[in-house]
Formats: sequence, C-alpha cells, structure tokens
Amino acid sequence: MPGLITSTANERIKRIRALQMRKERERTGLTFVEGIRSVVEAVQVEAPIDALVVCPKLLKGKTGWDAVALACSREVEVIEVDEPVFRTLSKRDGPQGIAAVLRQRWERLRDVEPGDGSTWVALESAADAGNIGTIVRTCDATGAEGVILLDHTADPFDPVAMRASTGAVFTSRLVRSSFPELREWAQAHGLTMVGTAGDAAEDYRTADYGARTIVLMGSERAGLPEAYQAACDRMVSIPMRGRADSLNLAVATGLVLYEVLHQRERRRPSERT
Amino acid sequence: MPGLITSTANERIKRIRALQMRKERERTGLTFVEGIRSVVEAVQVEAPIDALVVCPKLLKGKTGWDAVALACSREVEVIEVDEPVFRTLSKRDGPQGIAAVLRQRWERLRDVEPGDGSTWVALESAADAGNIGTIVRTCDATGAEGVILLDHTADPFDPVAMRASTGAVFTSRLVRSSFPELREWAQAHGLTMVGTAGDAAEDYRTADYGARTIVLMGSERAGLPEAYQAACDRMVSIPMRGRADSLNLAVATGLVLYEVLHQRERRRPSERT
Repeated sequence: MPGLITSTANERIKRIRALQMRKERERTGLTFVEGIRSVVEAVQVEAPIDALVVCPKLLKGKTGWDAVALACSREVEVIEVDEPVFRTLSKRDGPQGIAAVLRQRWERLRDVEPGDGSTWVALESAADAGNIGTIVRTCDATGAEGVILLDHTADPFDPVAMRASTGAVFTSRLVRSSFPELREWAQAHGLTMVGTAGDAAEDYRTADYGARTIVLMGSERAGLPEAYQAACDRMVSIPMRGRADSLNLAVATGLVLYEVLHQRERRRPSERT
Repeated sequence: MPGLITSTANERIKRIRALQMRKERERTGLTFVEGIRSVVEAVQVEAPIDALVVCPKLLKGKTGWDAVALACSREVEVIEVDEPVFRTLSKRDGPQGIAAVLRQRWERLRDVEPGDGSTWVALESAADAGNIGTIVRTCDATGAEGVILLDHTADPFDPVAMRASTGAVFTSRLVRSSFPELREWAQAHGLTMVGTAGDAAEDYRTADYGARTIVLMGSERAGLPEAYQAACDRMVSIPMRGRADSLNLAVATGLVLYEVLHQRERRRPSERT
C-alpha cells in the first residue's frame, strides 16, 4: 500500500473529487459514496468497489474499520489520506473519514430477457435524484427486476440517489434506453406496458398488469407525454381526494409496484413466501 | 410601502434570515419559503403570509409578479430589497427574487374532534424533513385529516419539508403531541391505532382500520418502540421480497394511507366521487 496522501493536488485525489460531477461519472463509469453507513452498505452488498478512501484520523468506531478490513480481505485498494485531503473530497459538515469509489453497473436493454412474473419500472424524465433512489429501493422491496431510465432522467449514481436507495443501486438492474427502443423490446418480449396519468379512467387497483409488466412513470411536473400514453397497453390513475393534483413520484410508483406484487401473489399462492 | 432595503444588517432582514434555523422558527411561529413556485403555491392556497420579500431586479416573469399583485390586493406587506440583501436570505445558487414569511399553523390535540371516516397519521421520530413533507402531501391526496408529530420528529416547516409538500403544509392540519396524550385522545374518541412493523403478522392489506384511524409510523432506522407497538390496537406489516428490509418512510405511509382510503370507499360506495 502506498503511503498517506497529503497533497490535495494529488492526481488520483483530483480524479476522485471530479466524480461529484455527473459528466465525470458518466465519462469514467465510476461513482463516489462517503460515510460509514453508505460504505458499509456497499461492502455488505458486494458492490463493485474500485477503491476505499480512508482518513485514519477521522474514522471512528468498529463498524467503519470492520468494513475496511473486509474490503482489504477482498483485495480492494485502500487509499489513505490525511484530514485536509479527505475534507476536499467530502460534502459533509462532519466527514466520517471513509468513502468508496464504485464502478457503475449498467445493462443494455437488448441483453435483458424478461421472464414471466417480471416487473420493470421505466422512468421518463424523472428529475429528482432522491426519488430515483427511493424507486430503486422500492423495486428491490417488491421483487421488481430493475429500473429503465428514459430521456432526461436524473443519475441513479448521484450521491443523493445512492443514499436514498440505501445501497439498492448496487444490487439492482439498471438500464438506459430510449422510448422507441423500450417499446420495441416490450413488444418483442410480450410485456404489458402500463402508464400512469391523473385523468386515466382505469383505477390502478383494478387494472390487469399481465404476466410481464413495464410500469411507465412520467415526471411530476409534466406527466407522461401524449405520445407515450398512446403507446401504452393501458393507462391507469391513482385516485386523489384532496386539493393536490399529484403525488410524489416515488410514492406513486410504490403504490403501483405494490399493486402488481399483490396481484402476482394472489394468482400464484403456491409461490408465496 | 417603505423604500428598498439595501442594508444586509437591517433588523427586519436579520430576523428573516434567522428563520433558516429551526430554533428561531419555533420561537417565532414563522417560517420562510423562497422561489416562484413555492410562493405561488402559498398565495394560491391562501397560506397565512406575514410578508413577501421581493427583489425587483431578480424577479422575472409574469407568474411571480402576478403572485405579488395578488398578495398586495390581500394587503400583505411587501418588503423590497436589493440584490445583495436578497442573496443573504437565499439558499439557492440562482435566487429568483421572491420569498415569503409565513405563519405556522398548529392545532392542539385536545381541540381536535375526529369524526367517522377520519384518518390521522402519527409520526414517531421521523428524521427526514423531505419525508415529512411528502407524507403531508399524501395525506392531502388521500383525504386524511392531518399529521400528528411525536417525539423528535423533524420540522414540517423546514424549507425541505415545505418544498416536498408542494404547499400542503399550509392547508393541512398539524399537531404536536406526546405518545401518552395521543393514546388518551385515541381512546376517548374511539380511534383505532394501527402501527407498522416489519415483523407484524397481519398484512396491511387485510387489516381492519376501523371507522376512525390513527396510522402510527416509526422511524426508518429504529422502527416503532416496543412500548408504542404494545399500545396499538393492531400492528400491520408491508410485505417485502428483496434484499432490503425496509421501505422509505413516505412510501410505506403512502401504501397504508391508500389502503385505508380504499377500504373506506369500498364500504361507502354512495360517497364515491
């Protein structure tokens, strides 16, 4: 292991610092998480860790050091830095002295073979990174396969998204696609594409989601574009009783995913766990 | 109207700036929102506006100026400030030149008379302001009465919570309470208190929520304390199929609130809208 890095201008440190920008994350296929909780989650789920960054002076407590030991046993590189260097990498008021550089994992839609009972979420122009992370987390909880990101959807490897996912971005299947490609894939594999809109006639609780499903969600501000709605096999709405005319995107997605799960389990009671 | 304020040390400006701190918000019973969207929402829902803060040089577009005009027609005070002063009030990279000082509205639990069909959410030590705002928004969407905040629950008048609520904090009923007081109130008014826990035997979709309901949610990290669970009329769980052992708090609350709404509507089809 090379010695303690004490220069904030160190080339490696500069490259890691640049991962705070989406552009650099996309160029390198890497991302950066900090904090004991996030790093422990990444180690626990065996996320593809490129390197750990540790500041021995700042890192307190057994949990964090256990994660370092476990990563070392898996031959993960550990970069030791002094406190001033760590502070240039951290976005926190109270940095915890531990961070990780992780490799993003993406699949290509054309390589995905959806089986019976599989559910995918497709997000069109979802702007809020926290919502994306929460949706990935809910996919994991409901046994959905993964998330397909369309158009100008925010980055699931944004630090805010990763935190909201509580580690699920590292175990979930993530795909970037265009809508025409998604539609073609859905048709080729017999997936039912179910979109949501406030004015759709069918209630999300009575709709038939089919054996293989894409749940297609529009942005909170603009909803699903007309052309996307027209291309869906069915459109469903979530009833609303108050002044508000929309729900938070992650809440709305959670409602639909749980309805799909519920219908699947009702149909196949023998497979209930 | 007094003239343009150009001093960042102006007493009024200093007091407004202090509203960024929870302590000062609690001391004064006021809060501060900024940005065209948030101020327009506040004006539209007739939130109790103490004053608008406007920087004419920064405020662009008809929507924002229409909100100023509407507030003026309601005799709301408008404080004009120059750009350097507005920037000391703003937490944004690109301040939009409009903000509002609003009065918090709270009710006392002992003054609340719950009727049949009414649903309240009680949050125990919910830490994330964004989740609180999202839950208030979902309460509005499902026709739930409001939110009761217990113990160390975050501030619904935190800027992050207000933004996540998309204005619903200004129209919703909010109550601060202790658990013993909540329990006594529930018993006195015949409310069914339904708590959630990952290991509860009863599925949230098959549980009976009664005619008047409190949905009691614990924190994401620790869940509901044992003593609170023991005091509930019933405990329900939300099934989970993945690696994750918990859902985002706002997603979980949304699932239960929609189940309560669904049961109420099924029972009283004549009242469906």
